[in-house]
Amino acid sequence: MKTDSIRNTVTTLYLSAPDMARLILRKGLATCISGIADNIRADFLRWEDFDKSARVANHSRDGVIELMPISDHRHYSFKYVNGHPRNTRIGLSTVMAFGVLADVETGAPLLLSELTLTTALRTAAMSAVAAQALARPDSRVMALIGNGAQSEFQATAFQHLLGIEELRLYDIDAAATAKLVDNLRSSGLKLTVCTSAAEAVRGADIVTTVTADKTNATILTPEMIEPGMHINAVGGDCPGKTELHANVLSAGSVFVEYAPQTRVEGDIQQMPADFAVTELWNVLAGQQPGRVSATEVTVFDSVGFALEDYSALRYMADAAAELDMGEHIALIPDMADPKDLFGVLRTTELRAPTGARAMTLVRKAA
Amino acid sequence: MKTDSIRNTVTTLYLSAPDMARLILRKGLATCISGIADNIRADFLRWEDFDKSARVANHSRDGVIELMPISDHRHYSFKYVNGHPRNTRIGLSTVMAFGVLADVETGAPLLLSELTLTTALRTAAMSAVAAQALARPDSRVMALIGNGAQSEFQATAFQHLLGIEELRLYDIDAAATAKLVDNLRSSGLKLTVCTSAAEAVRGADIVTTVTADKTNATILTPEMIEPGMHINAVGGDCPGKTELHANVLSAGSVFVEYAPQTRVEGDIQQMPADFAVTELWNVLAGQQPGRVSATEVTVFDSVGFALEDYSALRYMADAAAELDMGEHIALIPDMADPKDLFGVLRTTELRAPTGARAMTLVRKAA
Repeated sequence: MKTDSIRNTVTTLYLSAPDMARLILRKGLATCISGIADNIRADFLRWEDFDKSARVANHSRDGVIELMPISDHRHYSFKYVNGHPRNTRIGLSTVMAFGVLADVETGAPLLLSELTLTTALRTAAMSAVAAQALARPDSRVMALIGNGAQSEFQATAFQHLLGIEELRLYDIDAAATAKLVDNLRSSGLKLTVCTSAAEAVRGADIVTTVTADKTNATILTPEMIEPGMHINAVGGDCPGKTELHANVLSAGSVFVEYAPQTRVEGDIQQMPADFAVTELWNVLAGQQPGRVSATEVTVFDSVGFALEDYSALRYMADAAAELDMGEHIALIPDMADPKDLFGVLRTTELRAPTGARAMTLVRKAA
Repeated sequence: MKTDSIRNTVTTLYLSAPDMARLILRKGLATCISGIADNIRADFLRWEDFDKSARVANHSRDGVIELMPISDHRHYSFKYVNGHPRNTRIGLSTVMAFGVLADVETGAPLLLSELTLTTALRTAAMSAVAAQALARPDSRVMALIGNGAQSEFQATAFQHLLGIEELRLYDIDAAATAKLVDNLRSSGLKLTVCTSAAEAVRGADIVTTVTADKTNATILTPEMIEPGMHINAVGGDCPGKTELHANVLSAGSVFVEYAPQTRVEGDIQQMPADFAVTELWNVLAGQQPGRVSATEVTVFDSVGFALEDYSALRYMADAAAELDMGEHIALIPDMADPKDLFGVLRTTELRAPTGARAMTLVRKAA
């Protein structure tokens, strides 16, 4: 927001999807995920500073559109995100997102950003923050069930933030797995393609499920679970969409982002309303134990919470400023007198579409 | 949204604030308000088609930031809008807004638009739609209490849609009234500047209150109200912000947009939870009476509902298409394979900030 003594003009920094891809490539993907993870951790430690609410969802036959607002005393953010599983059949992504970071003191929108790419980074960062608190420190092997749009970001986060060295891969669509193997060929990760979820899970330290079907599926069943495993359940994230068998949840210790939202959207939607869960911020703050033994099964029932987008938007705003990226746009009218909105119409230059004929309505002297 | 058989690319039409000012000037302000009023009326008549909710508000010391989503089976819209009464002291508008119109079938954002100007038009259009149903048909004189940013738009709507010929003006800030008189000098309206709200109201057929103070004020008291008046109460629109004395409300028949929201935000926040109100859509649909006599006092307790922004966004989208205005932006990544989000990073051209050195990561053959 540019400020001068005569008047204030609100300009909003706009980061398009191509801008964001360039920003991520210039910073480095692992660096971005790690930086977002740092912001998430710091913001979760001041959990009580935030005005939190469950997201607002408009459901339709083929999908859902959600708004996810949150604020502290300095910044407000919201994300727009859809979930339309059938979109891939017409060549569109199932998830598209964008969002805004605003100034709480004035309400001015500071940053408008793509969040499709950014959501993949922040979800992976959130999973890594949880796993740092919940997985066994000697974890080196991760099963990755579901090799779609989010999977490479999860793999990168766990490689760089957890020290994962081997991925055991499974997807019902072999082409998705082949795409992942191709994308991560030079990552340094050992990639083992498996023919079933059970085979992928066998011997893994961490199991990440990030499947896309909008159904109550049971990707993980109790007999697949081994002592000491950490389950990072990412794909069960809206009503009617789960990945874990109920007995997997009751056999482990379950950690969530924001319980009021997760009880509606997460894998625990299958469980009674009083099913015991721990909000992760309590663990990060040292107020509740995380993993208590090397044989305990821990479950992070991740659905994605607005605070993570706030943390990510602030990281991207800082990175864009550092790299001088993005474009300033006039989403808000520039008013000579803030009480004279009508005056914007008097002082606007009226251009014909060709630009051939221009009629200027002259701004009156104040 | 551009569609072809190989793949789909989501582009979003962006209407900046300067674009919108030009659009309004090219169409004409009264034409735009009238067109938005037509859309509002048509959309209110299919009230039951919409997935409605009260807006989501984040309150802070100096103001509020709100999100207002709504959808039917074809379109979804939301508006971001703030309310920061102290903003004018630093040269900023108290209200800034923008919003999005999206495709329900895919979740793709179709239009990103400024809504600061548009909100002023749609609020005025909504007031006119209500007054057409509730004011005496022979109304020619309107008191306009509060001559700030919204006032000229209300004046224009009532002149062109109701046949108002004279405005009786009052504002505690004489400069605001002088600005309105200046702005509407060549409107054809007779403008009478008054020295008190009571003087302005005396003899008026319609009383529009559109004041900005974030307090429980009593702009209108019972002794000011004359038989047959229609009160268009626009400025009492958030918790703690009212304009009418409680006895004005109990003496009249009160009409609202969406009762669950108005009971929290409107002037009726002062009244018991079971205070009788009529939702306006019932009147437009002929299911409930509007004004029943020439001496009845009618009150439209307007707070602004998401459906009005939906109606306005659709009008502006159509107008932009007709005039070929706006710019297509890449808010959503263009993905060769919708399951390969990571691929966006591989195929993005990595440019140095100067543009001097370009490194292209070549897209692999499919």
